[in-house]
Amino acid sequence: MIRINENYLKLKASYLFADISKRVSAYVEANPDKPIIRLGIGDVTEPLPDVCVKALHQGADELSKRESFKGYGPEQGYKFLREAIAAGDYASRDCAITADEIFVSDGAKCDSANIQEIFAEDGLKLAIPDPVYPVYIDTNVMAGRTGPNVDQRYQGVTYLDCTPENNYVPAIPTEPTDLIYLCFPNNPTGAVATREQLAAWVAYAKANQSIILFDAAYVAFIRDESIPRSIYEIPGADEVAIEFRSFSKTAGFTGTRCAYTVVPKKLQAFDSTGQAHSVHALWNRRQATKFNGVSYPVQLAAAAIYSAEGQAQVKEKTDFYLENAALIRTAMTDLGFSCVGGDNAPYIWINTGRDSWEFFDLLLNKAGVVCTPGAGFGTCGEGHVRISAFNSRANVEKALKRIAEALA
Amino acid sequence: MIRINENYLKLKASYLFADISKRVSAYVEANPDKPIIRLGIGDVTEPLPDVCVKALHQGADELSKRESFKGYGPEQGYKFLREAIAAGDYASRDCAITADEIFVSDGAKCDSANIQEIFAEDGLKLAIPDPVYPVYIDTNVMAGRTGPNVDQRYQGVTYLDCTPENNYVPAIPTEPTDLIYLCFPNNPTGAVATREQLAAWVAYAKANQSIILFDAAYVAFIRDESIPRSIYEIPGADEVAIEFRSFSKTAGFTGTRCAYTVVPKKLQAFDSTGQAHSVHALWNRRQATKFNGVSYPVQLAAAAIYSAEGQAQVKEKTDFYLENAALIRTAMTDLGFSCVGGDNAPYIWINTGRDSWEFFDLLLNKAGVVCTPGAGFGTCGEGHVRISAFNSRANVEKALKRIAEALA
Repeated sequence: MIRINENYLKLKASYLFADISKRVSAYVEANPDKPIIRLGIGDVTEPLPDVCVKALHQGADELSKRESFKGYGPEQGYKFLREAIAAGDYASRDCAITADEIFVSDGAKCDSANIQEIFAEDGLKLAIPDPVYPVYIDTNVMAGRTGPNVDQRYQGVTYLDCTPENNYVPAIPTEPTDLIYLCFPNNPTGAVATREQLAAWVAYAKANQSIILFDAAYVAFIRDESIPRSIYEIPGADEVAIEFRSFSKTAGFTGTRCAYTVVPKKLQAFDSTGQAHSVHALWNRRQATKFNGVSYPVQLAAAAIYSAEGQAQVKEKTDFYLENAALIRTAMTDLGFSCVGGDNAPYIWINTGRDSWEFFDLLLNKAGVVCTPGAGFGTCGEGHVRISAFNSRANVEKALKRIAEALA
Repeated sequence: MIRINENYLKLKASYLFADISKRVSAYVEANPDKPIIRLGIGDVTEPLPDVCVKALHQGADELSKRESFKGYGPEQGYKFLREAIAAGDYASRDCAITADEIFVSDGAKCDSANIQEIFAEDGLKLAIPDPVYPVYIDTNVMAGRTGPNVDQRYQGVTYLDCTPENNYVPAIPTEPTDLIYLCFPNNPTGAVATREQLAAWVAYAKANQSIILFDAAYVAFIRDESIPRSIYEIPGADEVAIEFRSFSKTAGFTGTRCAYTVVPKKLQAFDSTGQAHSVHALWNRRQATKFNGVSYPVQLAAAAIYSAEGQAQVKEKTDFYLENAALIRTAMTDLGFSCVGGDNAPYIWINTGRDSWEFFDLLLNKAGVVCTPGAGFGTCGEGHVRISAFNSRANVEKALKRIAEALA
C-alpha cells in the first residue's frame, strides 16, 4: 500500500494570502467604485531592464538556428554567467568566491527550499527567524526535522525573535544550533545587519560547527556603504556559510526566473563518525541528479546585467522602488508609527501598536489600500504590517494620501 | 555540529559519461585528423520550431513593457498552457484529464526526481526497471529508501529486468510493490508497451494499492497507432498513476526547459492509520512551497506547439529524428544484430553479443563513432549499447558507413 510522507500533515495551512484575497474581494464587491491599491505582495511591477530584453531576443534567435542551437546546458549554469557573477558580485567586493562555487538555478525559493536535503534529517538543531519567509520552516517540517505545531510554533525549533527591542536583528542563541537561516536585507522587515552583527554570527557558527544559510535576495537595495552586500565580506564566512541570491528583485526576474547559490569549496559538514565531507560536492550531486539547468535565453538575460549598461539599468529600477520606499517610510513615520526597512530594502515594517489584522482591515476599508498583516509571518509579526514599495509612483502617492486621511 | 544526509554516501558514483568522455578524449588526441561522430547522448540537435521562437520573442516583448509585464506566475503554470495541454494531449485522446490536474515545471528530470518526497520514507517497496534512467533510483537512495549497493544493485529494491527474453518490457512482479517506475517509450531501450501490457500494470497497481510513476517523455515519437500515448488511455489509470511529460524531446526544449506532470484528483495515498489522502493536494503543497513556476516566455513557447502550425512543426522535427532512427536500426539489423527501439523512439538498443564497453571501444576506435555502453544503465544493460538518432542526416549516414566498414 502506497503511504504518504506524514510530515506534510504537520504543516499548518497558511491562509495568509488566501485570507487577504477574501477580504479584498469582499471590499471590492461592496465598493465597486473605489479602486484599491495593492502594496501587499512582494512582486515587482516595472518592466525588465532593456539589456535583459535584448538578451532574451538574442537567445531566442540562437535557438532558432542549427549552428547556434543549445541543448542541455550544464546543471550548474553556463560558465559565462557563473564568471560574470563571480566578477560582478564577489571579486568587486573583494570576496574570494570562484565561478565554480556558484550554482545557477531557477529561483532562490527553490534553492532555499532544496538545500536542507543534503543535511541530516534527525537530530539537527534549526535556528529560524520570526517573522520569517515561510519556505525556510515549511521545508524542514516536510522533511521531518520538527515536532508538531503548538501555539503557532513548531516544536524543537530555535526561533530567532526579531522585535522592536532588538531592532529586528535577532540575538545569537545562547545554545548551539546546527543549521541557521538568516535573511538580510530582511523579508518581511526590511532590516539590515551590520558588519559586526554578521561577524558575530560567523564566529558563533565556527564555534559550534554550524552552517549559516544566508538569504541575500534583496541585496540590490542596499545603499548604506557600511552594510555588507555578502556574508563572504566577513573573513572566514566561506567556512560556515551558503549564500542565496536572486535576479527576481535585482532585475525584475520574478516571472523570468533566475537565481544562484554560492557553496564555497571550503565548507564542510560531518557524518555521524565525525568525518568531514565537502558540502560543495553534496550540493553538486544533488543538483546534477535532480535539476537540469536554467533556460538558455534566461541565463543570457541574467548575464546582461553585469555590463556597465546593465548595472546602470538595474540601479535605475531599484532606485525607483527605493524612492517609493522612502515616501512610504516618511509618511508612516509622520503619522506617528515607528518603522524599520525601506532605506536598504523594498519593504517597510510598521509597528502599528495594535492587532495586525485589525490594522490591515482599517487600511483596506478606510483607505482602500492592501498591506500584509505581520502575524502572517510568525508570532513576532503580530502588531506589525508590511508595506511593499513595488508599485507605480502615482499609486504609492495616492495610497499614502488615502492612508493619511483614514488615520487622521 | 552540522551533519550530512548520509544516504548520499550510499550512492554509487556514476562514471558513465565521465568514462565515455575520457575515452573519447584519448581517441581524439591520438587521431586528430579523424573527426568523431557522437550518437551517444540523448540531446536534440535541431533548432526550436518556428512557432516557439516567435513565442519567445513575444514573451520578451511583453516583459519589456509595464502594461504587459508579468511578475510571479502561478506555481502550477499559467492557465493558458495547462488548458492547451489538457485539450491537445488528453481530450484529443479521450482522456478525462483536466487543466487543474496538470502541473507545469522546468523539467521532467526535476519532477520525476522530486515526486518521491510526498511519499513515505520507510517501508515503501520500490519497483524500478533495469536498465534505467538513473534519476529514479538515485533520488530514492538519497531519500533513504534503499539499502547499500551490493553487486551493482541497491538492496531492498525490486528490479524490473528488461531483457531480450521479455523483449525489454518487464514482467509484473510476483510480490506486491508500492511505488512503480515505468518509462515508455523507454530510455534507454526505445521499447514501447502495448495497451494490454499497460492495462496489466494498472490492474496490478489497483490490486496492491500502489502508484505507477509513468514517464512518457518520448511520447512524441510514437507512430504505431495501437500504442497508447498516455497511461490514462487505460480505464482506471487515473486512480493509480502519475504521468510525466516533457517538451524537451517533443519540441527540442532541452535547453529551453519546460515539462509537466499530471496528478489526477482521484489519486489517493494512505497514512499509517489507513486514512486516504489526495496525492494532488500533496503535490500542490510541495510545488507551492518549493517551486515558483516556469519562465513566462518559455510557457508561451510551450503553448505554441498546440496550434495546428505548431503540431505540424513538431511532427516534422520528430519525423526527422525517426528517419535517422530507421536508418540506424536497419543498418545494425543488416549487420546481424538484434535491435529494439528506433520505430517509436529516438533510441536503438542493440544486443551486441559481447561486453558493452568492449563494443563501445570497437565503434570508437575503428569507426570514430560514440555510442553509450548499456552497462552504464544497469546490470541488464550489459551486452548492449544505445545509439541515439539525435544528429544530422549526413552524420548518421557517415557513422553507419564507418560502422559497417569497421565490423566487416
